[in-house]
Amino acid sequence: MKKRIVLALGGNALQKNGEATAEAQKKIATSVGEVIAELSNKYEIIIAHGNGPQVGNILIHEEQASTDQAPAMPLETAVAMSQGQIGYWLTQAINNAFAAHGKTKKIATVISQVVVSPSDPAFKNPTKPIGQFYSEKEAKKLARANHWTVKEDSGRGWRRVVASPKPIDIVEKKTIIELVKDGVIVIAAGGGGIPVVRTKVLRHLKGIDAVIDKDYAAEKLAELVKADIFISVTAVPNVFVDYGTPDQTAIYKIPAANIKKLIQLDYFKPGSMLPKVEAAIKFASHKSHKTGIITDIDHLKDALAGKAGTIITS
Amino acid sequence: MKKRIVLALGGNALQKNGEATAEAQKKIATSVGEVIAELSNKYEIIIAHGNGPQVGNILIHEEQASTDQAPAMPLETAVAMSQGQIGYWLTQAINNAFAAHGKTKKIATVISQVVVSPSDPAFKNPTKPIGQFYSEKEAKKLARANHWTVKEDSGRGWRRVVASPKPIDIVEKKTIIELVKDGVIVIAAGGGGIPVVRTKVLRHLKGIDAVIDKDYAAEKLAELVKADIFISVTAVPNVFVDYGTPDQTAIYKIPAANIKKLIQLDYFKPGSMLPKVEAAIKFASHKSHKTGIITDIDHLKDALAGKAGTIITS
Repeated sequence: MKKRIVLALGGNALQKNGEATAEAQKKIATSVGEVIAELSNKYEIIIAHGNGPQVGNILIHEEQASTDQAPAMPLETAVAMSQGQIGYWLTQAINNAFAAHGKTKKIATVISQVVVSPSDPAFKNPTKPIGQFYSEKEAKKLARANHWTVKEDSGRGWRRVVASPKPIDIVEKKTIIELVKDGVIVIAAGGGGIPVVRTKVLRHLKGIDAVIDKDYAAEKLAELVKADIFISVTAVPNVFVDYGTPDQTAIYKIPAANIKKLIQLDYFKPGSMLPKVEAAIKFASHKSHKTGIITDIDHLKDALAGKAGTIITS
Repeated sequence: MKKRIVLALGGNALQKNGEATAEAQKKIATSVGEVIAELSNKYEIIIAHGNGPQVGNILIHEEQASTDQAPAMPLETAVAMSQGQIGYWLTQAINNAFAAHGKTKKIATVISQVVVSPSDPAFKNPTKPIGQFYSEKEAKKLARANHWTVKEDSGRGWRRVVASPKPIDIVEKKTIIELVKDGVIVIAAGGGGIPVVRTKVLRHLKGIDAVIDKDYAAEKLAELVKADIFISVTAVPNVFVDYGTPDQTAIYKIPAANIKKLIQLDYFKPGSMLPKVEAAIKFASHKSHKTGIITDIDHLKDALAGKAGTIITS
């Protein structure tokens, strides 16, 4: 039986040359597609991609060109739009990688809602900047009009900030499991998923403006679909200690308990390597014989063979 | 065994009050969700929605606020974005309609690519206006820069026009069939689908800027998934002859051959009732005992019971 893997693919990965045109991003998706097609011989694959730069551009366009006739979409709907956008590019790229070998394969992007708790402490302290920069005056005016929280961002201007709550469930999980069992390569929980809360009495789903970390969402997905391996695909081949200094040291195989100690020693940056390491630890720890991997797309195959990447074991 | 139905839901249906905010459109989606939840007791359901006003607004935002750092997405990618957007709203609305009755149901929006022929005659004569209005000078400049075709639109200014080719296949058809067999309510081929062509040698898929009529795409989907009934859900309860005149007459049950004669007599407007009638005829004609229905959301249930709507039989 094939092992089941969940890949968390960075949204930045599709813009690594800094080019944000659809054409440039599709070109990078093509090389991702080739890796996925090759891996599918040995693994059942679910891809949970990021959407940082893509949803950022959607929001900038929506906000800047908003009118009464064509009003801006809220963040939660913009996340859904970015799932369609990136999911389409990846679906087509993987499809074409199979076609290049004369093969066909079922590939499906499932629009995904990820449930968060309305009492998540993150909602009390929104930290995640999104959308365009404003002057202080504009920002405060928009904050009053739209019930936004705005903050000054590293001397570059004012921006809206939203909460980054933890994922607690994925609405479409059963469908995703059925698809992967049926041999479909599934793209799901894109951009950390569309953030939704469940109302108390009716258990209705309701979209909420927030940003769910894509590594945490992908890890939750990996747990829910009972994956064997969770892989955060990032820009570097390994997790490093003292990255960018002469003492830089790559981490290879490491038990979850040991890398946890490095977190306590503040070795990893929040918003960068920390969520990836935390997600991989969480996955490796929740049951025995589970593995969390952090590596880049070029080392993905070798990392799955145990020969590259940072491999976190239970 | 439940009968399988494909609904073609107009994109205008979500903006019937002319309000284009996410909030207003979600509110209308809620009432659609309630009808779908009720019908799911008796039918397997696939929904193929339109996206006219939604993708129009996405394109306007993308084009007006386009910069080198945040470049506008092309039409084919904008269609994918609108599939995410509308699919999310419908998924959530249907989910909530079940929740209101204490039930859960699997619902999935599948991002869908629809194959068209690069030699479709429509590409020689683009007719479908999309995106914002420009002055003649601006329009012609953009046409040169982007290889667009632009046309003057009814005295309101100049717009880009694209081809509206016929759908010939749906890339995700097998996945959609598996899902519906597994009891999932599926939302697919949104906005007529993301238009793609297959390259000759490698059989690669490649997005192409075009607009596929949502009724034709939904009918193709209905054929491919071997649906029993195809329903174009529109703004009026029936197809009418001499609509809006004192002689206005509703059409109820009618054999395909008879309503074909009314087409030949130019009774139905292109871009309005004609594609719906043509799609329903095509579906009812391609095998015996198939039914094509045209009605509005309020008469949907009665139409399926044979008591309302325009019902076209083979």
